[in-house]
Amino acid sequence: MGFLRQKWYVAAWADELPAGGRLARTLLGEPLLIWRAGDGRVGALADRCPHRYAPLSLGRCDGDTITCGYHGLRFDLAGACVENPHGPITAALNVPSFPVVERHRVLWIWMGDPDRADPATIPDLWFVDAATEHSWSKGYMHTAAGHKLLEDNILDLSHADYLHPDTLGGGALTRTRARVEERGETIFVEWLAVNERPMPVFAALMPSPEAPVDSWTSVLWHPNGVMVLRAGATPTGMAWESGLDSWNAHIMTPETATTTHYFYCNCRQYRTDDAALNAAMAAGLRAAFEREDKPMIEAQQRRLGARELFDIRPALLPIDTASVRARRLFDRLCADEAAAAGTN
Amino acid sequence: MGFLRQKWYVAAWADELPAGGRLARTLLGEPLLIWRAGDGRVGALADRCPHRYAPLSLGRCDGDTITCGYHGLRFDLAGACVENPHGPITAALNVPSFPVVERHRVLWIWMGDPDRADPATIPDLWFVDAATEHSWSKGYMHTAAGHKLLEDNILDLSHADYLHPDTLGGGALTRTRARVEERGETIFVEWLAVNERPMPVFAALMPSPEAPVDSWTSVLWHPNGVMVLRAGATPTGMAWESGLDSWNAHIMTPETATTTHYFYCNCRQYRTDDAALNAAMAAGLRAAFEREDKPMIEAQQRRLGARELFDIRPALLPIDTASVRARRLFDRLCADEAAAAGTN
Amino acid sequence: MGFLRQKWYVAAWADELPAGGRLARTLLGEPLLIWRAGDGRVGALADRCPHRYAPLSLGRCDGDTITCGYHGLRFDLAGACVENPHGPITAALNVPSFPVVERHRVLWIWMGDPDRADPATIPDLWFVDAATEHSWSKGYMHTAAGHKLLEDNILDLSHADYLHPDTLGGGALTRTRARVEERGETIFVEWLAVNERPMPVFAALMPSPEAPVDSWTSVLWHPNGVMVLRAGATPTGMAWESGLDSWNAHIMTPETATTTHYFYCNCRQYRTDDAALNAAMAAGLRAAFEREDKPMIEAQQRRLGARELFDIRPALLPIDTASVRARRLFDRLCADEAAAAGTN
Repeated sequence: MGFLRQKWYVAAWADELPAGGRLARTLLGEPLLIWRAGDGRVGALADRCPHRYAPLSLGRCDGDTITCGYHGLRFDLAGACVENPHGPITAALNVPSFPVVERHRVLWIWMGDPDRADPATIPDLWFVDAATEHSWSKGYMHTAAGHKLLEDNILDLSHADYLHPDTLGGGALTRTRARVEERGETIFVEWLAVNERPMPVFAALMPSPEAPVDSWTSVLWHPNGVMVLRAGATPTGMAWESGLDSWNAHIMTPETATTTHYFYCNCRQYRTDDAALNAAMAAGLRAAFEREDKPMIEAQQRRLGARELFDIRPALLPIDTASVRARRLFDRLCADEAAAAGTN
Repeated sequence: MGFLRQKWYVAAWADELPAGGRLARTLLGEPLLIWRAGDGRVGALADRCPHRYAPLSLGRCDGDTITCGYHGLRFDLAGACVENPHGPITAALNVPSFPVVERHRVLWIWMGDPDRADPATIPDLWFVDAATEHSWSKGYMHTAAGHKLLEDNILDLSHADYLHPDTLGGGALTRTRARVEERGETIFVEWLAVNERPMPVFAALMPSPEAPVDSWTSVLWHPNGVMVLRAGATPTGMAWESGLDSWNAHIMTPETATTTHYFYCNCRQYRTDDAALNAAMAAGLRAAFEREDKPMIEAQQRRLGARELFDIRPALLPIDTASVRARRLFDRLCADEAAAAGTN
Repeated sequence: MGFLRQKWYVAAWADELPAGGRLARTLLGEPLLIWRAGDGRVGALADRCPHRYAPLSLGRCDGDTITCGYHGLRFDLAGACVENPHGPITAALNVPSFPVVERHRVLWIWMGDPDRADPATIPDLWFVDAATEHSWSKGYMHTAAGHKLLEDNILDLSHADYLHPDTLGGGALTRTRARVEERGETIFVEWLAVNERPMPVFAALMPSPEAPVDSWTSVLWHPNGVMVLRAGATPTGMAWESGLDSWNAHIMTPETATTTHYFYCNCRQYRTDDAALNAAMAAGLRAAFEREDKPMIEAQQRRLGARELFDIRPALLPIDTASVRARRLFDRLCADEAAAAGTN
């Protein structure tokens, strides 16, 4: 399985790295050291000293340099060797480094051709910027499954009716045919349910928990594993503006072909100052993701082993439309990258 | 290493599956879901939903159907899809299923050509049916060794003199030359010892623990890993009928090439109402199998790694005769199956 | 990666094996049973019964024989079968055995051509023989890294300035250019520092901890992984004889291509009756090796995986001179062995 290289990937929540902090994390199969200098700038380097392949993450951070803990070579945020106690500094002593952008409370890393690292192509997570203390929660979950299986999970939200029946399910998503649309290099899926039962986490917040609602749920998938999920509901017949609305990010960054860094957040557009509700929502979502999604998808990966799901021709259902289109788009982009590499 | 496919294999003790119970177990390398409906019938399915390869064993059993926990597809005992919440039911949604027979308190599964699944070929374990509450005990032991090493262990019971000297050994088996005989598609081995020391577990039950005995020990090996072991003794010169007699099953069902499901039972034909003796015998046998056989045979497998014992030309002893003949018969049957598959 | 076969390897500290003791240890990828008879002699055998590959180390030692725990074959220290309860003793029942020499409180084993096993080629560890109760300490450390990485670590002691700054470092080794010399089939490295800061463990023992010292540090590397490290210091301008001197062994015996048995000892030539100092020195060295060297080198090995460091062209520094020469010599000796094997 290949990875798309010419993309920005989410490496971490920005607050995983306080000033002076460091993080050893493997992305696209490459071990990285990500660290933040005292002045707030962030560097991302291959996590190995060019001298003897000792992990730099075992070294010492001082201000804006890191010193290898084995033989004392020192590097700056850009990977340039700035001190060699044993001889001259040469180009061979530089460490591969990767552009990093901090945006939307997230650290984005570019592991492709540096000349093409354009921050304008970072997906827009405006709702993260807009979130206030008690209107959002977020999490990170290491998952022993490939990113495509995790993306499939969000591209087909009907799974909530079976895997999360008491919180995010309820049946409406199964009863509603999704509309799937290719928008440039993204896939958009939308479920618009009219006069339906709300999902349990919304029901309790409605004026009348038993009353039917109109609901809107949509997912925008980006090929770098960034998915924007909007979910809202309002008593049937009322304007969307009068209902509950939320914007969520589900972000799958490949660690290896079969393991994934899963970042998620929930940004409520209602009761944005309700700290208790915020805490309850955070706990409920974490429980659903960690105790329901993660075990199921990891079990699915174990059944597959090293095989790709679509290579073994699973039975396809109408609910798989978005997944099929996303995988096709992904494959096309991979082929484009391979072709471009061939002509360089 | 190949498996024989056209055989009935023991998948479980019947009481591992109460009504409504389920079991996720891999046989011959294939993960299976075995479950029992409320009416007592048992089904065995490939443990993966045809839609996305989620294990069905993570789903919900209701009466005589199982519902996939991921997207709600529902299947009956025969693997037929009986509900698809997302569209029409098609043949592609059926799950591979395997014939199951419940006999001799055991669940037998057939993973070969279904047209050849004749229950008449199930080995006769009449003594299990005849056992009463306090005359038998049984167990299950997962073992990290290939089924052939475990079968060799029973085909050459002289090992008891060294591995179980204080319980099942004593020396008589080593001093007695085994008679080996091929009987159709089975191998029969018999040790008849006259005027010998009884094995320790028998000695204490004899009229005079120090007196010599005549003993009979035999093993009937079936190529599906089912082995019937009879062991008895009587004071020297007395009729067998006046002595102690027991029938045992040792059953090795391949999980993978190097791991095995080991099922065993002991059916005493003496003191059949003695609950205390029954409990002591059960504990003693379990201790011998788990603390003596299992560590030794797993260590043997670790030494071999992926190699087959007979491929590396071990030194053969007269005690290996039955093992050699069983392996030869097994290989011939494998070749027959391969030839039959080639002509189909 | 190949191993040199025609060498004596350290298998154990002699006192790991009291009379009647046994040790299951893998050397050069081969599982061995090493055991000591009641009369003090030591045998080293392939740790597998020729009959069924059961590990002999699971058997019973009696005096100067070992009995396989599975079927009772019995072997002497030289691997000859001396009892077969099941038939005649034949040559096929002998176990491969390896010459063992006990010298310098170490058990040396020869796994090459037995005709070439000349104890005169065992490296001279005279200082171990000369050590008294409170003048030496020793240790053993299993390490998940290949022997070459561990040897590199000692061939370039400048690492102490970064990895052990508070004990064995101090900066002098970095500031001193090592002299490297090939001496027959060994590599000799020497750091002679004049008017320098002593390493911390020496400083506290000097007449004046702040005063400069002249120090001598040298390593003699043998291709069987035996390294003799001498380290001493004296107040600047004083004769070596008036200073602190120590002789150390660092011995790396390959277990597999990527794991190593690490044996080490420290023999002080000063304050040789100081039990408290001896205990403190032992604890300090163990802490440095286990908490600083081992984690770093194991991390280095994880970064490399199955790759050889020098195959991926790391950046070389002047401090790597000894390592480069040792690896070249090692490769030449491997080639010599391969050529000799080809002509036999």
